[in-house]
Parts: sequence; structure tokens; C-alpha cells
Amino acid sequence: MIQKGDIMSVIKSSNVVWHNTEITKEKRNYLNKQRSAIIWFTGLSGSGKSTVANALEHRLHQLNARTYILDGDNVRHGLNNDLGFGDEDRKENIRRIGEVSTLFIDAGVMVLTSFISPFQEDRDSVRKTVNETEFVEIYIKCPLEVCEQRDVKGLYAKARKGEIKHFTGIDSAYEEPENPEIEIDTSKLTIDESVDRIIKYLEDHSYIEVNRRKRLSKALFGLLPQTESV
Amino acid sequence: MIQKGDIMSVIKSSNVVWHNTEITKEKRNYLNKQRSAIIWFTGLSGSGKSTVANALEHRLHQLNARTYILDGDNVRHGLNNDLGFGDEDRKENIRRIGEVSTLFIDAGVMVLTSFISPFQEDRDSVRKTVNETEFVEIYIKCPLEVCEQRDVKGLYAKARKGEIKHFTGIDSAYEEPENPEIEIDTSKLTIDESVDRIIKYLEDHSYIEVNRRKRLSKALFGLLPQTESV
Repeated sequence: MIQKGDIMSVIKSSNVVWHNTEITKEKRNYLNKQRSAIIWFTGLSGSGKSTVANALEHRLHQLNARTYILDGDNVRHGLNNDLGFGDEDRKENIRRIGEVSTLFIDAGVMVLTSFISPFQEDRDSVRKTVNETEFVEIYIKCPLEVCEQRDVKGLYAKARKGEIKHFTGIDSAYEEPENPEIEIDTSKLTIDESVDRIIKYLEDHSYIEVNRRKRLSKALFGLLPQTESV
Repeated sequence: MIQKGDIMSVIKSSNVVWHNTEITKEKRNYLNKQRSAIIWFTGLSGSGKSTVANALEHRLHQLNARTYILDGDNVRHGLNNDLGFGDEDRKENIRRIGEVSTLFIDAGVMVLTSFISPFQEDRDSVRKTVNETEFVEIYIKCPLEVCEQRDVKGLYAKARKGEIKHFTGIDSAYEEPENPEIEIDTSKLTIDESVDRIIKYLEDHSYIEVNRRKRLSKALFGLLPQTESV
């Protein structure tokens, strides 16, 4: 178990080819002062995956973290524009997202993915392609009724009318994550509180380092004890 | 035509949604102090694409640039492991590399691609998916005789014996780039000289900023005129 506060030593110790001229993931992470990973958001349509992912990215960016969001907008219209929504294509969609995420991890970037990704098997298959600590599964939990009430894109209404088939939560299953690293209930937490919780996890597990200035300034305002190691 | 030395103002001026909370390519580039782009290496097997790309990445990393190399090693074994070497698959291979490169540009990363990519049409199709200044085509030129003499992987010998079919330069065409941004003849330049030339191009066109300390220290040793704007 990696402890809080030792991020730079963790990055250093994992770099076994420092003398090599090749630029490795470890060197990129060292430059970026972070440990790259996939932050995998999963949850029903309307649960708040994209909202929380975007708010998280905003906060991470303020902390000088190097991030990128993969979502339907940039993946389905580009790399996966040859894929439909049948079973095979859905699997291939998640496979490619996993492979691209792996490249981003290798590039030293914290990659946030925002897809319903309803099946445990698919999520696990991505988890298996990376190192143990490089996959952070975040279950954005929200009761179906609440998601349906929000219905930002009007998709639930269409699914209820039968205009959309195989809609997750209506006529297609959503398998809740068995052991997600983080669980966020957006019907109970605000966006800010959700992000706070994720940031705390990422800091506690040495993915990011909340920078000295921020922590010092918080300490000055009494939000953190003065003894906190900065 | 973007002039040297104004990289941060170029990045700033292109950021039209600064008030938005969304983290854009421009904000990522601003954080990274670079303008992300695809550095597309093309050339015969054995011409030195990977060698130059790796040496370039090493130099860019020393300048704190955020970089990533896409090559056969990390693409063919992962994302494109479902593709063979037939005409259709070859096209799809390049298409996906282009799409992934676009994601990296969006993520604010300088992406170096190292593939033979023998056909003008394929290279142009990638060029078209990004903004005009985001595609830097580098033709790694080297006479076939020299490549064959090097034959690091023993592939030319096999191709001559007919053990490999459709080998570029032997029984499959290589179309020289019509208007590459940079042309490097590795039979005449050393690796260092090749990298120098590319770095100069990237600096002259405001992709990267050779950092103040380096330039100042060079100036101290009289390698740059003291009047050089730093």
C-alpha cells in the first residue's frame, strides 16, 4: 500500500532504467509530478459521470496535473467512428478506449474516461491491461428514478417510448461495480463534494501532490493543521 | 506565418473560451508551454526514423516538453493488434494512428509517430484531420542502398530472398513526401545534427520554447548572441 506524501520517491523507485536515454513513463511522471492512471467513471446515463469528470479535471488542472478526458464526444466521432452499438462493436469500443488509455498512462497523463460501461467483464478487461494501481474505478451511483427525472438529453423518455432499444437501466442491464476504488452518490453529494472525495483519494494514494503553495495557503487560513507535512 | 518567440501569446490568443470551466487544448498547451502537434516521421525501413524520433524525444524532454512516441511497438501490439498487413488493414492502421494522435494533440502532448507510412494519400488523410500547423511531416531520407546495408533487423535480406512480400522499397513502392516540413538525410547528417535541425524548426515556428536557463547558459558561453531575446 502506497502511503501519502511519498509520490516523488514512488516515481523515482519505479524508474529502473534511469541511465537509459529512452524516455519512459516514469520519467514523464517525474516531470509531471504525478503518477499517471486511468480514472474510470462508470454509471447510468444521467448519473453525473461527465459532470463530475469535468469538474475533477478542472480541479486537477488547477493543481498543474496533466489530464485528459475520453468520452463519447471525442472517441465515438473519431477513433471509433467505424463502430456501431451491437454487442461486438460495444466490446471493441471499450477495448480501444482501454488501449488508448494505456497509451496515455504511458505518456504520463492522467486519463479520465466517462462511459456508461455497464458490464463488469468489460471494465475488468481494461483493468487487466494496466498495472494494479493504474486503474481507479469510480462508480457514479445514482438511483434510476433520479437519473430518469434529470433526463438531460431526453434519452429516458425515448427509451420508455421504445424509440431507443437496449437502453441501460430500462431494457438493458447495468452491473454495479463489485469493488470500485471510489463510490460517489450524486443524489446525496454536491459536485464539489464529489470532487473533494476523489481528490482526497488521489492524494492519499500518491497519484497527485496538492502543491505546496495551495496547502500552505490553506494552512494559513486554518483549514489544514500547521503540522501537516508540506 | 507564426513568428519565433511569441509562443505564449500564440497559445493565449487561440484560447477563445478562457472563461469556460472546460479544460481545453489551449489551456493544456499553456500549462505545458508548448503548442502540441503531430511530428510525423516517414521513410524507408532502416532510414533512421525511430532513432531520430527517440533522440528528438530525449532532447525535447530535457527542454521539459511533453511528448509521446507512437510506433509499431506500442500500437501494433495494443490498439491495432486486430489488424493485419493487407491493404484495408494498413489503411485502418494509419487512420487509427491519426485519430489517436489527434487525441494527444488535444491533450497538449507533442506526439512523434514513427511508421514507414509509404503513401502520400495516407499521410495527407491524417494531415487533414488536424489544424494546418498541427502536422509536421518529417521525411527521413536515406538511399535504399544505405538502408539495405544497415539492415538492422535483417528484413531487407529476407525481402530479397522473397521471404517477406510487399516490402517497401523492394517490391512495394515508397512515395516520397511532396511537401514535407522538414527533410533529413541520415546518410549525410549525424543523429545530433538531425535533431538540431528539427529542434530549430520547432523553435522557429513556436512549437516549443527553448527554456531561459538553457539559452542564458549558452549565451554565457558565447554560443548565442547576447542580444538574443530570452
